[in-house]
Amino acid sequence: MAKDMTLLWGSGSPPCWRIMIMLEEKQLQGYNQKLLSFEKMDHKSKEVMDMNPRGQFPAFKIGKHVLNESYAACLFLENQYKSQGTKLIPDSVDAQALMYQRMFEGSALAEKIPAILLYNYRVPEEERHDAALQRYKDALTAEVKLWEGYLKKTDCCLAGKEFTLADVLVFPYIAMLFRCGLCSERYPAVAKYYNSLKDRASIKATWPPTWLTTPGRDILKTI
Amino acid sequence: MAKDMTLLWGSGSPPCWRIMIMLEEKQLQGYNQKLLSFEKMDHKSKEVMDMNPRGQFPAFKIGKHVLNESYAACLFLENQYKSQGTKLIPDSVDAQALMYQRMFEGSALAEKIPAILLYNYRVPEEERHDAALQRYKDALTAEVKLWEGYLKKTDCCLAGKEFTLADVLVFPYIAMLFRCGLCSERYPAVAKYYNSLKDRASIKATWPPTWLTTPGRDILKTI
Repeated sequence: MAKDMTLLWGSGSPPCWRIMIMLEEKQLQGYNQKLLSFEKMDHKSKEVMDMNPRGQFPAFKIGKHVLNESYAACLFLENQYKSQGTKLIPDSVDAQALMYQRMFEGSALAEKIPAILLYNYRVPEEERHDAALQRYKDALTAEVKLWEGYLKKTDCCLAGKEFTLADVLVFPYIAMLFRCGLCSERYPAVAKYYNSLKDRASIKATWPPTWLTTPGRDILKTI
Repeated sequence: MAKDMTLLWGSGSPPCWRIMIMLEEKQLQGYNQKLLSFEKMDHKSKEVMDMNPRGQFPAFKIGKHVLNESYAACLFLENQYKSQGTKLIPDSVDAQALMYQRMFEGSALAEKIPAILLYNYRVPEEERHDAALQRYKDALTAEVKLWEGYLKKTDCCLAGKEFTLADVLVFPYIAMLFRCGLCSERYPAVAKYYNSLKDRASIKATWPPTWLTTPGRDILKTI
């Protein structure tokens, strides 16, 4: 079935990475994939726009079904391949409730990290304000403190002992925090979580290639 | 079971409304609920912060499980009450793929509408720029055009003939567009969708009470 899937992706994009981790976990290797470039604005190319009219990575298709939204792709894949590879929605009601809550809280990270990293890209020079950027940093600090609190209380993964959809969806943003200089001493539980998962097979196999060859920017070291 | 549920909510908040529509669809009436006030800053009250540390509506609990994130609450409820009330995840692979894709594309509306409506609330006066607000309006225009295209092709609901989770999650933002003056002539398919669902029992029963008694602002009539 993986031969029926096509992923157009950019290196270092957490939404792309989520789908790639998911496909590994469900043993769906061998899909068609094409690494494209943000710098060359490939996300606005006809090839991508034909699949994803918002002009964003990823563009992802399973057969005729377009599933560009990473949450959509992961939930659909889990539903269609329940018994293949890792089971990613736990049966236990407790773990399931926690998994759903954490996986959607992940969207707060997905909003607050890019607000800082992409500030200069998104905001024209004449509209930039140091105070705005500082406000975004304060918001991210409060956000990461929440996750530090959550991860202090759990055992290994976001919804308990088991690796679940919440980890597939949130880990790439946690990795991005450290890529951008997050201080491990200030957030020991987040760092422990990061270190315990970064060598997991599905994650290691899909690590953003540009992250392996170029250093990150220390833009989040003060948060 | 609904007696075990508590919802702290604000009128006109689409995330709150989603959960309320969901509870109606699953025949889970009779839950504990408390209508609180944005104007009085109740979302930053201890009562809300104890359940939702980000200080946002909704704060929602099922038994001991906190499910403040509306997508989390709806997916969890559908999983736990599959055979009760409306079945909201279709069996057909085609409809399911489309449902997941559209429900998460809904997050683009959830980002782009508040960027305009809450601009003055979020951005201090000395940082406001007409050009930024215009950019947000252009982005929302492009976004609503996408939905117009989607809804032209479907039969009634977002994922086909059946009312699904995608409608529970996206409809409140569509309603907000019209509450804020969206032009029906310019977006006839979106208007048709809105009109076909606004009197559905679950939606009518949970219509934001402040919307019934006060007029909306025409802030989106030019998009």
